Amino acid sequence: MIVAPLEPGQGHCVEPLLRSCGEVFSEEETRVALAMVVDALRGNYCILASLEGERLAGYCLAGPTPLTESTWHLYWLCVHPQFQRQGVASALESALEDAVRASGGKRIVAETGSRSDYDPARAFYRSAGYDECGRIADYYRPGDACCFFCKVIV
Amino acid sequence: MIVAPLEPGQGHCVEPLLRSCGEVFSEEETRVALAMVVDALRGNYCILASLEGERLAGYCLAGPTPLTESTWHLYWLCVHPQFQRQGVASALESALEDAVRASGGKRIVAETGSRSDYDPARAFYRSAGYDECGRIADYYRPGDACCFFCKVIV
Repeated sequence: MIVAPLEPGQGHCVEPLLRSCGEVFSEEETRVALAMVVDALRGNYCILASLEGERLAGYCLAGPTPLTESTWHLYWLCVHPQFQRQGVASALESALEDAVRASGGKRIVAETGSRSDYDPARAFYRSAGYDECGRIADYYRPGDACCFFCKVIV
Repeated sequence: MIVAPLEPGQGHCVEPLLRSCGEVFSEEETRVALAMVVDALRGNYCILASLEGERLAGYCLAGPTPLTESTWHLYWLCVHPQFQRQGVASALESALEDAVRASGGKRIVAETGSRSDYDPARAFYRSAGYDECGRIADYYRPGDACCFFCKVIV
């Protein structure tokens, strides 16, 4: 597995990757995620890809949080179902930490839902050393809170 | 005191209002706030003004939170020092609640700093019925956490 910045020529692989996750991402979320990929390929975000041979196994997209000195937001992290539970998310997150550290960032914030199909996402953040800093009930929709996670980069 | 949507012809009054608050808003924050006023006057956010005669006593800027069903974010709330402690912030927040309710919104989220010159802001949110839902330490800069507040609109 190789983790490297997503190349412009690989941008078209993100939509099938997002759609492979089934109901996890709504149509609107997929639309927003793809718009941010376009922005990232213009240099406005950091986008990292995990490649298994020629295939895109996963990607993450992050960027410095506006109006903060050294905080980053991890906006999207997606792994193809065929490549889940093989360390892809960890490899992406670890490479992101390196990128954040190299640019002087000191912490990464991730926001995720409380609903059950996000159980693996929350478990992943905890295992990767993120602390849950708070929840806003019913944030995304009734019954689906926003859970804030943060990891301090050392 | 009248609270009403900010008119395009009043847009130029926001910069002196922000600058009247001294060090509370950094140069970068002022720049971002003014860009969002321009966006609001194009219809992309809700912007409400509190007028004392011809003068702009305060304003707030808010909008539906992307990828949520019924959450709004209150992005900016600013009252001129000459008009503070006279109910201007309460009047603006109350009018915003009406606007959020009218558009089907169910809660308002506000994020604010933990540093001492934001003590009045945090006290205001608590008095207005917002609950603090969490904090991310050192979010804005070392020693300045992000405090998340949320009020459910009934």
